[in-house]
Amino acid sequence: MNRLTVRAAIHVAAIFAIYLSVAMLIPAAVDLFYDNDDWQAFAFSAVLMGGLALAVALATQGRPPPVSTRFGFLLVNMLWMTLAVAGAVPFMISSLDLSLTDAVFESVSGITTTGSTVISGLDQAPPGILMWRSLLSFMGGLGVIALGLFLLPFLNIGGVSYFKIESSDIEDRPFERFQIFTLSLIGIYSTLVFTCALCYAMAGMNGFDAVNHAMSTVATGGFSTHDSSFGYYADNMAILWTGIVFMLIGGLPFSIMILFVLRGHVDALRDPQIRVYGGYCLVFSLVIAIYLTVANGTPFLQAVTHSAFNLISIITTSGFASDDYSLWGPFAVVCFFVATFLGGCSGSTTGGIKAYRFLILFELLANGLRRLIYPNTVTPVRYGDRTIGDDMQRAVILFIAAFLVLWAITAMLLGATGLDFITALSGALTSLTNVGPGLGPIIGPAGNFSSLPNAAKWICTAAMLLGRLEILAVLVIFTPAFWVR
Amino acid sequence: MNRLTVRAAIHVAAIFAIYLSVAMLIPAAVDLFYDNDDWQAFAFSAVLMGGLALAVALATQGRPPPVSTRFGFLLVNMLWMTLAVAGAVPFMISSLDLSLTDAVFESVSGITTTGSTVISGLDQAPPGILMWRSLLSFMGGLGVIALGLFLLPFLNIGGVSYFKIESSDIEDRPFERFQIFTLSLIGIYSTLVFTCALCYAMAGMNGFDAVNHAMSTVATGGFSTHDSSFGYYADNMAILWTGIVFMLIGGLPFSIMILFVLRGHVDALRDPQIRVYGGYCLVFSLVIAIYLTVANGTPFLQAVTHSAFNLISIITTSGFASDDYSLWGPFAVVCFFVATFLGGCSGSTTGGIKAYRFLILFELLANGLRRLIYPNTVTPVRYGDRTIGDDMQRAVILFIAAFLVLWAITAMLLGATGLDFITALSGALTSLTNVGPGLGPIIGPAGNFSSLPNAAKWICTAAMLLGRLEILAVLVIFTPAFWVR
Repeated sequence: MNRLTVRAAIHVAAIFAIYLSVAMLIPAAVDLFYDNDDWQAFAFSAVLMGGLALAVALATQGRPPPVSTRFGFLLVNMLWMTLAVAGAVPFMISSLDLSLTDAVFESVSGITTTGSTVISGLDQAPPGILMWRSLLSFMGGLGVIALGLFLLPFLNIGGVSYFKIESSDIEDRPFERFQIFTLSLIGIYSTLVFTCALCYAMAGMNGFDAVNHAMSTVATGGFSTHDSSFGYYADNMAILWTGIVFMLIGGLPFSIMILFVLRGHVDALRDPQIRVYGGYCLVFSLVIAIYLTVANGTPFLQAVTHSAFNLISIITTSGFASDDYSLWGPFAVVCFFVATFLGGCSGSTTGGIKAYRFLILFELLANGLRRLIYPNTVTPVRYGDRTIGDDMQRAVILFIAAFLVLWAITAMLLGATGLDFITALSGALTSLTNVGPGLGPIIGPAGNFSSLPNAAKWICTAAMLLGRLEILAVLVIFTPAFWVR
Repeated sequence: MNRLTVRAAIHVAAIFAIYLSVAMLIPAAVDLFYDNDDWQAFAFSAVLMGGLALAVALATQGRPPPVSTRFGFLLVNMLWMTLAVAGAVPFMISSLDLSLTDAVFESVSGITTTGSTVISGLDQAPPGILMWRSLLSFMGGLGVIALGLFLLPFLNIGGVSYFKIESSDIEDRPFERFQIFTLSLIGIYSTLVFTCALCYAMAGMNGFDAVNHAMSTVATGGFSTHDSSFGYYADNMAILWTGIVFMLIGGLPFSIMILFVLRGHVDALRDPQIRVYGGYCLVFSLVIAIYLTVANGTPFLQAVTHSAFNLISIITTSGFASDDYSLWGPFAVVCFFVATFLGGCSGSTTGGIKAYRFLILFELLANGLRRLIYPNTVTPVRYGDRTIGDDMQRAVILFIAAFLVLWAITAMLLGATGLDFITALSGALTSLTNVGPGLGPIIGPAGNFSSLPNAAKWICTAAMLLGRLEILAVLVIFTPAFWVR
């Protein structure tokens, strides 16, 4: 690590912050349109942030840095810290007047597409603030896909990259390809949000709700404009099924959508992680629907709608709730807890352990059992048609190990702040997996994070960021080796 | 797999059962001594079991089987099934009159050195039954050490074997060495139990309690002769510290003790897993002692005694309790939950994930983080002075992966029987790690497993057996490849 690298990373983050200050003009416009005085807060934030960012960008101008993995890791961390700070400022100076702790928590919850909230009274909140929350989810979702597409695979974390596979794409004219991919990604992502908003509106949401929910649905974020989340629309099957479909899409690998748009072929759809992801969504939804019908006597159509909505919401790490599923009985609660680990596909906006890691883990397990019987036979670990190399196996295992150790540490720390067992255990988990709601009366689907002690909020904030950056991309910054010149 | 192999495994199991039927004469003698009519139940069990076992042994006589890994796996599973059945019979026909479910649960809890119980009113139970429970722990503990010494390392699970390292030991005159090791093991184990009983008696236990608790302390079993476990002796510091010391010894690798006795040198004591194990025992005990002193105002000496006793009891997977630690506050409860995963050393009587696996996991993690920064540098994964090969790394990871998947499945199944979230989650965990008590009002340190539905008891029984046989040794039996001719 040298000064040039740090300086260059700061420079890129500052330019990124200029774009963010422009984004603040959107909620300002919304508040102006709805005649709410908060527009001044956003305008002020934009000017403050933009001015500061411009100054830093100019001060750090210089030669481009030597491109290295360390520069990549540093940049990723800086970009997300910038997003976190930029996101928090409007919460502090708007009429909501959040404390520093609450503002940072809410901002990080947005940009990590977690969707936990410390704000009560969303139904009466100023429209600009609601729009800002949705925008943070939107930008966070876009950011994490870009991260998964362009950066993490080259840093050897983050999983299956279709661009690494089709190496011709990056080897000839890399910059041009990079531009095409970025534009395609933004196009596809925005089209999905637009289509989702249209469907929500046609199903009965008002325009403002439709746009806000669409942004946080496709980003698998989980922020709602109502305290009761989708419970506000609990009787509208069309809205709930729209949510189900677009959350499911949000959990698919965007790289596959890009390749489809650019080339028009869908070979990649046979990616085995999609089958695993679809499989567990289907099984969990059906099992709980049957359980609700048999044990609680709920009519099947209603049972399957709410079961699918809430479970797919947890599995895709969205975190919307159409009902307080913590009252569905003990079996359902254990299933929701287990579902909190799962996540969607690699290259999606979802968090958690993710389908491809489970797939590789099961392959490793089956392979290992075979080797116990035939110790001298070496069979490769397979992922669909391909063989998984040692590096990939190691990355999967490292992630899961780090994830579990961090979960234990976070839960103990939350316990030390005085939280009860279920809140500590599920709070740590839901933060690390970027799901949103936990279990228990405080942070369960019917609650929120506002009453937690400040220390607990900071611990959750750190856990959300760690989880979003695939843990290892943050941990690596804290190793001494990273800072050696 | 062929018929000869199955037949040979049955033959060995039957001979083993003959020994077990002889062991039943011990509780018979105890009941005779205390003038309790249950001696007939044990004598009858012994005759029934012994006769049946003799018949099977004669019927399956034949040439020795081709020694293969599959024979090893089959034998391990059969031996433990034999122990489970033999252990259950006296519970069913004695005056306790347990149901089949309860008898098998209690038996498996004993032989797996778990120590969960379905019997209430231990203080009034017949002495022969109490002795039988302790004997089951004693035999289970001895069995699992033998398994870890002689069998599992050669099946490529189970961890660090000192005999594999010092290969001269097995290469020249293997059978003679085998005999010496077995006799040393029995000698050391029995000496430890005898010494422990003596210490308990000197500290104030009556002779019967001292012998029973000594057997289940060294086996890290957890069966007590009192419903309140060591809460019965909560004010006797000498008894609690005796327990702490012998539980700690039970968590050490017995292979090291054998080498020490045979050779008189203690080089092996520098085994890094011992430092990790000692380290987390110390840290957890001290942190909770300080927490109890600061948060609850308990005097430090009392706090550190109960903290060390209960945490080391959980870490070594013993499962004794000197107090209802579920009332010590949320932070303590989360710590006890995390401690349930830990376990002692490889080659001990403890269950759980175990210190050497954590050590290798952390080495893998540190190594992986280094490789993220320097992708082209390959550094070996180290365990103390040695390099850990791919096979060992794979075995560690396989175990942990299988462990977590089984935990999730077991918890969901327990939830499906109607158990609440905490009982399902902690019951599944405590069974798989062979700890004993779970959390919550039903199976917590102040409760027991008697009120669980039958289905839940069978699920826990299966989980205890899986956990005891390092999971993979059981799973392998269920793969189709295992049964291919």
